[in-house]
Amino acid sequence: MTNSLPFQHILANQVVIPNLLLQKYNKLGLDEIELVLLIQIHRSISNGNYFPTLQELTSMLTTDEQTCSRLLRKLIQKGFLKIERQENSQEQWSEAYSLEPLWEKLFEPVKEERVQNEDG
Amino acid sequence: MTNSLPFQHILANQVVIPNLLLQKYNKLGLDEIELVLLIQIHRSISNGNYFPTLQELTSMLTTDEQTCSRLLRKLIQKGFLKIERQENSQEQWSEAYSLEPLWEKLFEPVKEERVQNEDG
Amino acid sequence: MTNSLPFQHILANQVVIPNLLLQKYNKLGLDEIELVLLIQIHRSISNGNYFPTLQELTSMLTTDEQTCSRLLRKLIQKGFLKIERQENSQEQWSEAYSLEPLWEKLFEPVKEERVQNEDG
Amino acid sequence: MTNSLPFQHILANQVVIPNLLLQKYNKLGLDEIELVLLIQIHRSISNGNYFPTLQELTSMLTTDEQTCSRLLRKLIQKGFLKIERQENSQEQWSEAYSLEPLWEKLFEPVKEERVQNEDG
Repeated sequence: MTNSLPFQHILANQVVIPNLLLQKYNKLGLDEIELVLLIQIHRSISNGNYFPTLQELTSMLTTDEQTCSRLLRKLIQKGFLKIERQENSQEQWSEAYSLEPLWEKLFEPVKEERVQNEDG
Repeated sequence: MTNSLPFQHILANQVVIPNLLLQKYNKLGLDEIELVLLIQIHRSISNGNYFPTLQELTSMLTTDEQTCSRLLRKLIQKGFLKIERQENSQEQWSEAYSLEPLWEKLFEPVKEERVQNEDG
Repeated sequence: MTNSLPFQHILANQVVIPNLLLQKYNKLGLDEIELVLLIQIHRSISNGNYFPTLQELTSMLTTDEQTCSRLLRKLIQKGFLKIERQENSQEQWSEAYSLEPLWEKLFEPVKEERVQNEDG
Repeated sequence: MTNSLPFQHILANQVVIPNLLLQKYNKLGLDEIELVLLIQIHRSISNGNYFPTLQELTSMLTTDEQTCSRLLRKLIQKGFLKIERQENSQEQWSEAYSLEPLWEKLFEPVKEERVQNEDG
């Protein structure tokens, strides 16, 4: 007897990542833990949670809160991540992570050092 | 001057569809409007809306509510779609669409008529 | 006994579609068969086949070659699709479909009639 | 003036990853570099390259070949990865990575220690 999750559960719970991020993160000076932290923030945003807490992010890594906090600051300083203020439909303000600086580095290579041809 | 949507908006709002669905829908006896209706239900489920209303589904197609309702009944009768009762964490019951019958037809080909080799 | 396809086969053979295409195709004047044709071209390109033949595209629809050919011409005339000449690494020229006009309509809404807020 | 990559290039070059992998890798005893190595193998397979070389895999990480080789052996020993012999349509045999053991751990939780409720 099989006890797999339903296919629907598998198919409806996936995250989409640009190949370029996986091809270029090391050339951009990121290491694996920083890459995984960026992917986890992208996954949260894709699921509608724009500002996961430090506790939530730490629980998605193998590290502790102090290290996770330091990594977040470093990603912001190096220009991969920013925090923005957002106004929702009830005119309430909240903070949100934005990965736009990361995507611009990957997809607008002329602004940055030219990213070489795909699939290295 | 460019006025594109932010990359983050584009990347965080996508839906993932099995190639097999796009390869086999016509061999399974589905036409394009039925395929698109199934895809829209899959998109709703992926976004956490498990029971889109008839009005919502109709607004995602080029058809009217009467036709959309007829298509839903036909998909259920033909065994591509079912409606299930779900209990949430507050012990409230609600209805939900399930595409599990569709995915089983595609991914468990032995039960059904054998689906031929990929990418036809 | 279960005879599912391997998970790896399911997970490695998927196509990613922007939500905006599924939300806006009817407002852009496309019907379901045109939408599915565009999705099939996008799937071919994603799989590295940039210029699927008329036979290949027709086999992915419920229609015949004559209708498929007419639909392709219509999509080009309406500015959703174009055919480009590409030079490969062996300096050989070939033709390729480009969906860039479609993506620009969806993601650069200011150029076109303004696409309203998400998830309508 | 903008110099973005074409939308088509961005949209056609993405990889799809199950949320469960990102939610559970640390509970399965994997660290970030092992996770990224598994993701890179999944990306290769999704792109039709079933047996990336050690050199290719190393170039996708921040590590050296010796460490990458050690990680591959560890992933195989711990039951996340296996190497299979495949016969192609010309009756030639070749080796291929399979991530089926990883997906089974994630999607057939009863066989393994029960994976707790989603989105931890």
